[in-house]
Amino acid sequence: VQRYALVVEYDGTDFEGWQSQPSNNTIQDALERALATCLRQTIAVTGSGRTDSGVHAANQIAHFDSDVIANVHSTMKNINGLLPDSIAVKRVVPVGNSFHSRFDAVERTYRYFVSTTPVALDRNRRLWIPRETSFDRMNAAAKHFYGEHNYSSFCRTKSETKNRTCFVSRAEWVTEDPYTSYFEVRANRFLHGMVRAMVGTMLRIGSGAQPADDIPTILQAGDRRAAGPAANPKGLVLYHVTYPDGSLPLNL
Amino acid sequence: VQRYALVVEYDGTDFEGWQSQPSNNTIQDALERALATCLRQTIAVTGSGRTDSGVHAANQIAHFDSDVIANVHSTMKNINGLLPDSIAVKRVVPVGNSFHSRFDAVERTYRYFVSTTPVALDRNRRLWIPRETSFDRMNAAAKHFYGEHNYSSFCRTKSETKNRTCFVSRAEWVTEDPYTSYFEVRANRFLHGMVRAMVGTMLRIGSGAQPADDIPTILQAGDRRAAGPAANPKGLVLYHVTYPDGSLPLNL
Repeated sequence: VQRYALVVEYDGTDFEGWQSQPSNNTIQDALERALATCLRQTIAVTGSGRTDSGVHAANQIAHFDSDVIANVHSTMKNINGLLPDSIAVKRVVPVGNSFHSRFDAVERTYRYFVSTTPVALDRNRRLWIPRETSFDRMNAAAKHFYGEHNYSSFCRTKSETKNRTCFVSRAEWVTEDPYTSYFEVRANRFLHGMVRAMVGTMLRIGSGAQPADDIPTILQAGDRRAAGPAANPKGLVLYHVTYPDGSLPLNL
Repeated sequence: VQRYALVVEYDGTDFEGWQSQPSNNTIQDALERALATCLRQTIAVTGSGRTDSGVHAANQIAHFDSDVIANVHSTMKNINGLLPDSIAVKRVVPVGNSFHSRFDAVERTYRYFVSTTPVALDRNRRLWIPRETSFDRMNAAAKHFYGEHNYSSFCRTKSETKNRTCFVSRAEWVTEDPYTSYFEVRANRFLHGMVRAMVGTMLRIGSGAQPADDIPTILQAGDRRAAGPAANPKGLVLYHVTYPDGSLPLNL
């Protein structure tokens, strides 16, 4: 049997997230259906991590095993023909049988996109902020996220994850053009709802409702109620998954 | 009466172009309907130029006259509430009564977006090129477009425009990331179907079907049949309209 890695882009708007659900309306379900039809065998797809309902991915990484693929290019073409147009498989790559998209990932990078004007072209993946917002204040807040912290205050209350420690290696608001910016955050791991809680808290700070220096206090509280409301999922994109050199032979 | 400039972004996928049509299914029709409802007076909207069916705009500029607007911010909010979500008015700005979005424009900039992998997130505005394509060859071809030329070979046969001379001040393929690139072209004026014919011709050159040095010969032919087929409208975005300093007080 041969293991394959997939690079998957998706518009999460109409899906109930990555992870398989009884409704079958998830990215994982759609991929497993397309692969089963294409390869005529039951295929289990494992992703690098779950994305929530409505969250997108530019380069989600997943893997599966199969012994019937003769040509990865024609397989990729067939899978894309079977998938809805909101999911695109960008690469199918043979990898070593020990490669694991989730356990081998050393860092994940998310981007949260906002616009200071109404949006038409990117309306599915950009949050319009109607208020006056200071990106300088939001960047001052973001600096406090760097390094190792307990992120309980930025994790959904119902999450059962015991270990709440995350190491954040990048947290920065980047200006794309006069109207649009994104928050780029990279960490070894993310808790449930973490990026949306971080962005929701910074948007409050950007609007002037709260000082940027509140972030350390919020982190120390260890209580979800200390942070701001979760930002709308539509602005969030899983942008990149990092693997140790050589384990995933992709130029992404 | 006061004149106002509009900055309009639209996803052209479901519209029959900018220019008003008997079907009423155009951007201009939608804007005039929303303004009439909002301002309770008939409003004629003039755009900087027409975009074809399926073509998008990031910053189309238009103007209209009205004597009933008390507050441009609340007017903008009301118009956006009335428009379909594929059209967004990003700015409403009072301008001098001699300002004319079409006659005052000195240059227009278009971008044509392509991807070398299947696309999900930007599927409405990015052309997937399934073939191996050389962007170096396409950039070598693009260099021949610079300067003043007769663009009859890149103009729709049925166009009635007599003057076919255009001055191109930028024509360049830009790499965004390993999968995506865009062709940025700026000129004092564009003929009907011109950018799509230029891109269609360059895609043939990029695939190796034709040498980059054919462009001068194609320009000299003065015959639409000398150039390649028109590229799909979905990749094309009107990106920027340039006005003389000070005539349109916008930071775009």
